[in-house]
Amino acid sequence: MQFAQRLDNVETSAIRELFKLLGKPGIISFAGGFPDSAMFDVAGIQDASQKALAQDAGLALQYGATEGFMPLREQLAAFTAAKGAKDVYADNLVVTTGSQQALDLLGKCMISPGDKVIVEGPTFLATIQCFRLYGAEVISAPIDSQGVIVDELEKLIAEHQPKLVYLIPTFGNPSGATLSLERRQRVLELAVKYQTLVVEDDPYGDLYFDAPPPASLLALSSEVPGSRDWLAHCGSLSKVLSPGLRIGWLIAPPELLAKAVMCKQFSDAHTSTFAQATAAHYLLAGHMPATLAKVRKVYAQRAQTMIAALRSELGDAVAFTEPQGGLFLWVRLTGAHGALADANVLAKQAIAQGVAFVPGAPFFSQHPDLSTFRLSFATADEDKIREGVARLAKALRA
Amino acid sequence: MQFAQRLDNVETSAIRELFKLLGKPGIISFAGGFPDSAMFDVAGIQDASQKALAQDAGLALQYGATEGFMPLREQLAAFTAAKGAKDVYADNLVVTTGSQQALDLLGKCMISPGDKVIVEGPTFLATIQCFRLYGAEVISAPIDSQGVIVDELEKLIAEHQPKLVYLIPTFGNPSGATLSLERRQRVLELAVKYQTLVVEDDPYGDLYFDAPPPASLLALSSEVPGSRDWLAHCGSLSKVLSPGLRIGWLIAPPELLAKAVMCKQFSDAHTSTFAQATAAHYLLAGHMPATLAKVRKVYAQRAQTMIAALRSELGDAVAFTEPQGGLFLWVRLTGAHGALADANVLAKQAIAQGVAFVPGAPFFSQHPDLSTFRLSFATADEDKIREGVARLAKALRA
Repeated sequence: MQFAQRLDNVETSAIRELFKLLGKPGIISFAGGFPDSAMFDVAGIQDASQKALAQDAGLALQYGATEGFMPLREQLAAFTAAKGAKDVYADNLVVTTGSQQALDLLGKCMISPGDKVIVEGPTFLATIQCFRLYGAEVISAPIDSQGVIVDELEKLIAEHQPKLVYLIPTFGNPSGATLSLERRQRVLELAVKYQTLVVEDDPYGDLYFDAPPPASLLALSSEVPGSRDWLAHCGSLSKVLSPGLRIGWLIAPPELLAKAVMCKQFSDAHTSTFAQATAAHYLLAGHMPATLAKVRKVYAQRAQTMIAALRSELGDAVAFTEPQGGLFLWVRLTGAHGALADANVLAKQAIAQGVAFVPGAPFFSQHPDLSTFRLSFATADEDKIREGVARLAKALRA
Repeated sequence: MQFAQRLDNVETSAIRELFKLLGKPGIISFAGGFPDSAMFDVAGIQDASQKALAQDAGLALQYGATEGFMPLREQLAAFTAAKGAKDVYADNLVVTTGSQQALDLLGKCMISPGDKVIVEGPTFLATIQCFRLYGAEVISAPIDSQGVIVDELEKLIAEHQPKLVYLIPTFGNPSGATLSLERRQRVLELAVKYQTLVVEDDPYGDLYFDAPPPASLLALSSEVPGSRDWLAHCGSLSKVLSPGLRIGWLIAPPELLAKAVMCKQFSDAHTSTFAQATAAHYLLAGHMPATLAKVRKVYAQRAQTMIAALRSELGDAVAFTEPQGGLFLWVRLTGAHGALADANVLAKQAIAQGVAFVPGAPFFSQHPDLSTFRLSFATADEDKIREGVARLAKALRA
């Protein structure tokens, strides 16, 4: 069978192959990019799903508008506005089947084969593949502990004239890095200066540890004239409520949003109305603040435990910036004192020792840094984290 | 903002504009392509969703495999096999976000810009648009009351060497037509002879009135050597259980299925696990036969009522083949005795009289027949059907 040419641009992710090994008995996994199931507010979701069926089952189980279920759009707009994003209303937002679909719709709407896009190096693996499927050449902009290096980003924009710049400014995946306020303002200025769409992917912003992160690009856009016209924002309930509901959303300038809706009509018609009505009732019931408070506390504690264990067990063989939220710790093997500096090798030795993580290379669209790897601190409890890091130390010495 | 070139190939559907008029008070609509909300088995779905959360909420609310939730894949394979499709197991099937996503994945996997595909004329509007977004030239094969005319189809395949042939063989949308058993066998033989993928879209096959339709292409493929290698089958729970769950599925040869899974990974990661677990529990509980029996009886009665009303109210001004199942009656204005023969004009006059339907032209990818229109008999009760047809007769005389 002769498949479409676009499939030549991608391959099934190396990570998927790794994940098959996770079934090994007794393995401690720091590999997942998902929240801890134990954090799910099952009672709250159960209550919300029952309300959705009790109040108007005919609506919750029927076809719905491609743009999304209006009560959910209103709740999500309010949720976003409460974090400082002015002038965000239900009409500015469409519900997507997870924020992965928002990325897919942006790719479909924006990218012609051969177009260039700029992403952080490293960035979310599925974004790279998603955009490549639409024929994009994916350029990598370097980051440091403060997120993307804006001077470098500007040079790349000027050189490549990309169709869009994709960033995870807050608690990035896999970097854990958070873009500073000053850089956020500059990114918005660049969007206006170069008339380039900036996509802010923000699934982790609510998962801060001690203090809220800097305002989102969306919230800041009201201070940078013209920038809202060049900004798309992707939100998600997956990391804060439940991935299984598949509720994400896209906020974008009206013309782009209309194109995204047209594409969504032919992608999946609309997101599950039952899931949307359930999420709407959950938000309406006011459960979210308590759920977030609980999740933040647990993840902060786990992050601290992992950081302490890494320092004590691996010492200067590793370097990392302490994340202020999110799910991930991005680690570099320093090679100090002749220690192993290749994360792919370490990953294999780690599996043998009973601990798993994701090596960093696949997260780079260009110029992979083979010394890097990603640890999730979200899904293992503290005892498992300590034990897993001890195994990691053994693997490093193996 | 400069959008992707692929958007130049499509436009927001004319039907969407029409649907905006349906909010007019007192209008009777035969326009919808959806099941009647009053038929939903709310208690059964409620019970299933509660079981999904009670038995393993951690699974139902977490990320899941892109291929789908295994217990649902098993249930859907059994549901399909029970209709005579041999050798269909969970591994041969992936769950999609409605069967619309199955079409989108087939487009993404198969169609390069400039490729040709063949569809029935008329066919499902969203299929035409979905494939055009991937750059397809959509060729139209003529149909009669027995479905696609296979001699014509063969000529078109030989001439155009399409990437795929898309058919709705059973109770077609909008045609209501059912492909005869003899033609089904010939279609499968053509797939093998020309090494051309045939896509069988089958959302309506369970909605028969008196007797089951001929075996699906999928079921028949075991009798035509080699044909399973060139056959994709799209199923859906939307018309028989609930569109709001967004549960469809794709059965395809292993290599194509693997490509579809890769594309789905970057389209929406997976279909809502909560919706999948709910559907799995619904099917497992054995509710489906009773639900189908009820729906079949109600829709059969409504179809008969509409047919009788059309004959008595519009006489020889209209011609149609009586459907044996599904949701639709496909009508042609004959122009007899100088009556109106343009369905677009009739649609406007009908709205003025308080009844709505969809004119036929948009359902054709080429050579639109302006005398045709589609009536849904599924969503209005019998009194409304009689009143709506009386209004239609008035509109015809207006």
